[in-house]
Amino acid sequence: MIEPRTLKGFRDHLPAQALAREKILDIARRVYRSYGFAPIDTPALEYLEILTGKGSEETDKQLYRFTDHGGREVGMRFDLTVPFARFCAQHIAALGTPFKRYHMATVWRGENTQRGRYREFMQCDFDTIGTTSPVADLEMVLVVHDLLRAIGLEKFTIRVNDRRVLAGVLAALGLAERSTDVLRSLDKLGKATPAAVAAELAAHGVTAAAATTLLSLATLEGPPADVLAALGKIVGDSETGRAGVAALEQLLAGVAQSGVGAGRVVIDPSIARGLDYYTGIVVESFLDELPSLGSICSGGRYDNLAGLYTKQPLPGVGASLGIDRLLAGLEELGRLELVETPAELFLVFFDDKHLADYLRIAAELRGGGMAVEFFPEAKRVGQQLKLAAKRGFPAALVIGSDEFAAGTAQFKNLATQVSTTIDWHGDLHVLADAVHSQLEGIRAGH
Amino acid sequence: MIEPRTLKGFRDHLPAQALAREKILDIARRVYRSYGFAPIDTPALEYLEILTGKGSEETDKQLYRFTDHGGREVGMRFDLTVPFARFCAQHIAALGTPFKRYHMATVWRGENTQRGRYREFMQCDFDTIGTTSPVADLEMVLVVHDLLRAIGLEKFTIRVNDRRVLAGVLAALGLAERSTDVLRSLDKLGKATPAAVAAELAAHGVTAAAATTLLSLATLEGPPADVLAALGKIVGDSETGRAGVAALEQLLAGVAQSGVGAGRVVIDPSIARGLDYYTGIVVESFLDELPSLGSICSGGRYDNLAGLYTKQPLPGVGASLGIDRLLAGLEELGRLELVETPAELFLVFFDDKHLADYLRIAAELRGGGMAVEFFPEAKRVGQQLKLAAKRGFPAALVIGSDEFAAGTAQFKNLATQVSTTIDWHGDLHVLADAVHSQLEGIRAGH
Repeated sequence: MIEPRTLKGFRDHLPAQALAREKILDIARRVYRSYGFAPIDTPALEYLEILTGKGSEETDKQLYRFTDHGGREVGMRFDLTVPFARFCAQHIAALGTPFKRYHMATVWRGENTQRGRYREFMQCDFDTIGTTSPVADLEMVLVVHDLLRAIGLEKFTIRVNDRRVLAGVLAALGLAERSTDVLRSLDKLGKATPAAVAAELAAHGVTAAAATTLLSLATLEGPPADVLAALGKIVGDSETGRAGVAALEQLLAGVAQSGVGAGRVVIDPSIARGLDYYTGIVVESFLDELPSLGSICSGGRYDNLAGLYTKQPLPGVGASLGIDRLLAGLEELGRLELVETPAELFLVFFDDKHLADYLRIAAELRGGGMAVEFFPEAKRVGQQLKLAAKRGFPAALVIGSDEFAAGTAQFKNLATQVSTTIDWHGDLHVLADAVHSQLEGIRAGH
Repeated sequence: MIEPRTLKGFRDHLPAQALAREKILDIARRVYRSYGFAPIDTPALEYLEILTGKGSEETDKQLYRFTDHGGREVGMRFDLTVPFARFCAQHIAALGTPFKRYHMATVWRGENTQRGRYREFMQCDFDTIGTTSPVADLEMVLVVHDLLRAIGLEKFTIRVNDRRVLAGVLAALGLAERSTDVLRSLDKLGKATPAAVAAELAAHGVTAAAATTLLSLATLEGPPADVLAALGKIVGDSETGRAGVAALEQLLAGVAQSGVGAGRVVIDPSIARGLDYYTGIVVESFLDELPSLGSICSGGRYDNLAGLYTKQPLPGVGASLGIDRLLAGLEELGRLELVETPAELFLVFFDDKHLADYLRIAAELRGGGMAVEFFPEAKRVGQQLKLAAKRGFPAALVIGSDEFAAGTAQFKNLATQVSTTIDWHGDLHVLADAVHSQLEGIRAGH
């Protein structure tokens, strides 16, 4: 006998978790598509040199790599950005630009699981490639907004910044050459205290006065116009900084013109995003009730996606939904409805002699678009209903010999345990209509 | 510069292919759910001993395997059945039976690519576990039927058999002990000629008379009642054989009671399915116009799913959609609509000064559920329309300064190149309604 177990850092998705994830993926797919983003897919395995070309030392270390049957050095993708860069280098001429794609797929990292991280997880990326237009930046923010709304979230904030603003501030402070270290430290604000960040900045050789200015970015608040004015002062004459401030101004105008509620998208000059390759707008988004969860959807603009694989410069902008983090957040907020079945109705198998009738009823209900589970054995009704309730079916339909004789049926709301008698006189359409409106009533009642 | 390329036997999915696949997956998900099958997922990587425990020598050889960072011997799943068996052994007590799941995921096999096979492909399995009820067998056939119908196929045939019928015939012919070899040979009918199969049977020590009887199974045709009567004669007194014939009779009755058209599901006594573990009903399904494509959705009943991992016997029945084969068949039949965009409308960016108006229009249309791509740069209109036509957008909306001044818009059918003027008087609702009904017209016209 072989012990049935999963590898450390890997997990099974049981129906309740898988259904919750499919629901979010479905919403993401719909929102991405509503802006014209098209799906792509790439292999899970790539030539090792493709994956290690751009990765940091950390991702290289975490890579699942091996030699395949043909003696090739291969690796499992650790993100969707590197494969996408390789993909664009190969296919962009045929696809044309601007090219908008989404990619929802699994990635693997041999991470330290003690931090509560998994070694297999999904990423849901979308990007617009081949244009530097601010409209593409704006759309990225709108997609994040529409996505979080479509998921049913009401209390969230999208925080935007422009790396050029930070570059301008650093230039004004004479710190342009230490920008990577400084931005990495600044990026810790929110997770670390301002004092801790200040200490880190000092270690990078930042003067106390400059550190105060940098940390003040984190506390700039108020109406967008005021924040922009304050930023304008701090960046001073830096051309890059002024371009960043103008871009943020244009972005906020576009957000408002697109009908997004005031206060949904705010400027947060402290957002840097650790990744070195962002060069323009950067975005993070937070659940107001769970700020400690971190950003659930983040991204930004970059100058060149695929420089390792092609000479064609490919600027772009995109973001990624952290679906595992989002699901964890929804669960913590009690907003995750965990049921074990995708079906709406449980049809009890009461009486063997009426199998043909049950089959006709199930076919009629399914033909009308309803998801119906028919219990496959004429076991005790109580046992069937117990399973149905455990699995989270909203309702069950019980029809025994007496009901068939009388042309009736019992519609049972499994949450309230209230039964309603349906008179259908042996007419399948009447039964289907009645079940349909009973289910509507349950949905409306919640 | 690193050469951008994919591994041999692996492929990128560009938008047209990815959209076609997503559409089929979406339909499969909906049909599986309509019978109460719930999604699950398992890791791509498993302990090697889990994967090699049940696999044949061939799958063991094809396995992508390596030693991970923690020194564990691991492998990438080569099908969804073995991980599901491991999954059930771990979780079935918590989930309860009968348990109905679907699993749509990628698998990997280091196959010989010369046969046109890929080393990475998707499987779409559904199974009902923990019941021996014939209703579960029937539902399996109904799901296959509903799935192929929902995909839009009209000309297909589902061929069913019962392994007990074959076992009965073999018993009646005194070949019970050579059943594995004989069934493997019989399974080649359709691909190999009857003469070739007869030669193979002779090599297994089957007499000419017995071979004639076995091959006659393949040509049994006609009304189901006649086929069942003929099978009844051939199985003679074999109890197993008679149980198989009775099961097929019950299955066909259930299919008819569920409203499936006559002739959709036929008995084909030659179908054996090579896999040893099937013990009851077996099913294959074929496109009538492309029989050489092979079965696009196949499955059957088995006695025990997870015997390697648990002592609990887990009988079940299930099938698998061969999505790559199906897509290849649809393409060959010219039934695959390959477009590069999921969006319905291309909004031309005509005039920079009206950006705010375009944003409002796009937001209004998307708010009504329409998928709209807005070109991000005010480039030449001809260039934008050319890209839109290439990508397969059904229509474009063109509004320039003159149109904004007049309160009009040009709705352009990109297939016919016919433009229609919409009078919207600056009222976004009027514009959205008009675009909506124009798009409906295009859909209806096709």
